[in-house]
Amino acid sequence: MALDKKIKNSPNTVKIGIIGGGQLGKMIILEGKKLGIQFIVLDPDENCPAASIADEQILGGYYDSEKIEKLAACCHVLTYEVEHIHADILMALVEKGHSIQPAPTTLKMIQNKYRQKTFLLEKGIATTEFEKITTVVDIENYIRREGLPAILKSCYGGYDGKGNKVIRTVDEIEKAYQLLGGSTNELMIEKYITFTHEISVIAARGAYGEIRLFPIGENIHEENILRTTIVPARVEASVLQKAEKLALEVMEELEGTGVFCIEMFVDPEGNVLVNEIAPRVHNSGHYTMEGCNISQFQQHLMAILEYPLATPYLIKPSLMMNLLGEEKEGRAMIEGLTEVLQYDDTYVHFYGKEYTKPLRKMGHVTLLGHNPEALMDKAEKVKKVLKITGY
Amino acid sequence: MALDKKIKNSPNTVKIGIIGGGQLGKMIILEGKKLGIQFIVLDPDENCPAASIADEQILGGYYDSEKIEKLAACCHVLTYEVEHIHADILMALVEKGHSIQPAPTTLKMIQNKYRQKTFLLEKGIATTEFEKITTVVDIENYIRREGLPAILKSCYGGYDGKGNKVIRTVDEIEKAYQLLGGSTNELMIEKYITFTHEISVIAARGAYGEIRLFPIGENIHEENILRTTIVPARVEASVLQKAEKLALEVMEELEGTGVFCIEMFVDPEGNVLVNEIAPRVHNSGHYTMEGCNISQFQQHLMAILEYPLATPYLIKPSLMMNLLGEEKEGRAMIEGLTEVLQYDDTYVHFYGKEYTKPLRKMGHVTLLGHNPEALMDKAEKVKKVLKITGY
Repeated sequence: MALDKKIKNSPNTVKIGIIGGGQLGKMIILEGKKLGIQFIVLDPDENCPAASIADEQILGGYYDSEKIEKLAACCHVLTYEVEHIHADILMALVEKGHSIQPAPTTLKMIQNKYRQKTFLLEKGIATTEFEKITTVVDIENYIRREGLPAILKSCYGGYDGKGNKVIRTVDEIEKAYQLLGGSTNELMIEKYITFTHEISVIAARGAYGEIRLFPIGENIHEENILRTTIVPARVEASVLQKAEKLALEVMEELEGTGVFCIEMFVDPEGNVLVNEIAPRVHNSGHYTMEGCNISQFQQHLMAILEYPLATPYLIKPSLMMNLLGEEKEGRAMIEGLTEVLQYDDTYVHFYGKEYTKPLRKMGHVTLLGHNPEALMDKAEKVKKVLKITGY
Repeated sequence: MALDKKIKNSPNTVKIGIIGGGQLGKMIILEGKKLGIQFIVLDPDENCPAASIADEQILGGYYDSEKIEKLAACCHVLTYEVEHIHADILMALVEKGHSIQPAPTTLKMIQNKYRQKTFLLEKGIATTEFEKITTVVDIENYIRREGLPAILKSCYGGYDGKGNKVIRTVDEIEKAYQLLGGSTNELMIEKYITFTHEISVIAARGAYGEIRLFPIGENIHEENILRTTIVPARVEASVLQKAEKLALEVMEELEGTGVFCIEMFVDPEGNVLVNEIAPRVHNSGHYTMEGCNISQFQQHLMAILEYPLATPYLIKPSLMMNLLGEEKEGRAMIEGLTEVLQYDDTYVHFYGKEYTKPLRKMGHVTLLGHNPEALMDKAEKVKKVLKITGY
């Protein structure tokens, strides 16, 4: 349902609801406030990062249909910054005429990894091979046929590597099955592909169907958590072209407006395969805040508020590194902040989470520079100095 | 008094008090939230632009010493985004050990235009000629000696041209004197100089004495209200050098950390004269948000929180145009917003003020482009389409 023209001309009267009040929600709000937009956040934690700048917060969980209905009732457009939320209630709300972006049908589809992969397969989009798993015997059969290593995945609920288990030897099958709760959870198995690069494309669809891509970033994960995004990705131009083409193919098939992230693998032959889709702003797009003419957060707002999209371009090569909590838990503190702020083209973001714990995403740093190599050196320097630790 | 190191390493525990909750305060907060900083705003209007993102607001006027003391008591550093505030109470608070930046002594000095000019004169800084005025006869004597036109100014309280009156004929003397309340208000008179350009330098002093200048902007005023800032200023390189030198001379003499704006005139011979100093972030520095590697707001925070300053540079030539309310009063609406958002490198800011009235500063637009000429053309196009009007 199109937004009222009067509302669109008075952005300070627009109310956007966001399910999730983490750092992604916070950064959406920071952009929206430049236009005076009002935000209502649904999050169970009253100290969530977005709370300090949201106009209002509804305290509640992401599966609380009553609270989600309440949120929808008081905003012009509803969006989300998390994926594990009650998609059925969102679909019902769309039926009732609410604007929810990206479309809950897309959300519902990606929430189940097996359904997501099947969708890609059906649409003829290159992706890694996969198979549904019910019993340990299914895994054994798969491995006998396809070989090792393989990756066992929970179809629901995984993020940052949770819900995934790599099987490297036959001995590990039973343990992996138990770990992911195979007797009660829906599971799938994938070939563990050898890739040379992980890349991601942040893409947006506007209200009039236009699609815009951000420059493609290369992602480095450790312990399944994104550590670093480097832009432009250090792959050949032909790979970038394939990735863009693939991203456009995916975008043509997804429903709804807003920003999406399409994660891909590049194999040693230079083939590009879709790994996973997120119908939301994404950690690998944080670099756009300083590295591009428009941030992913602002582009998301342009899309869901039915304004025209910007055509993104890179101002300078960029590197984003996540600031994860070190070993020491407690109230969060950034060691080395003053030193790092002396470096040029260095932007520190600290999400405002009160407590740190190991590997918790507490903030990120964006570095701009002449080329990816120089940025990698600079990042090493920053990493040595800047530590999130408890006190 | 230096900030505690622990506090500086935990920016999410830092509390900054801001006197004034207008758009300047709002934009300071938007930058500070990237580091998770907390803000408490003192403003009499509960719907002021900063209110929607401040962590807390103290409702009160800028001369309410009790409320100012309350604000100081609950923050680590106190700053201000307006000039017409109770400077004496701020000076007393500094005596008691509070950190207030820039120094209230500087604020006190600039609040009285005669004192400000005398200060510049004493420090040997080039400025326009001026004289104190008490009676109509004083004005007559001045004009007999110096000629017309002259500009009569109230020493206190003027902004956006309020408190100024140009005298072009002898007949206007009495009227100007009455208009500015000469029998009760302190007045001064200045030679009305013919200038080819108005320019301004946004400068910052850090906690360790370092001074950093932003690229110099050229300002266009109409009806004494800033309409447009063009960066780089369209003056010769030698003029820019003189302006930088002059700005550094001024900065060496001012007290306190933070961002200052130094407004200057360029005369037909290419001489540069200081017109006015503002010890705060400034409308003519808004272009820095998109046009520079660091915004004036972030630089201000770096300074007052005793972090190192960045060295500002221009990403692309920039033009900032203010969005002032048109004739029609009422609830604010931006006609043409959707159209303008189609233009590339065009950034619309809307402060979130509910009501518009003629010439009220409701927002601004920053344009980036190849050169000032192209930007002027683009600005004309934007101006034709984008209107703030009431409904």
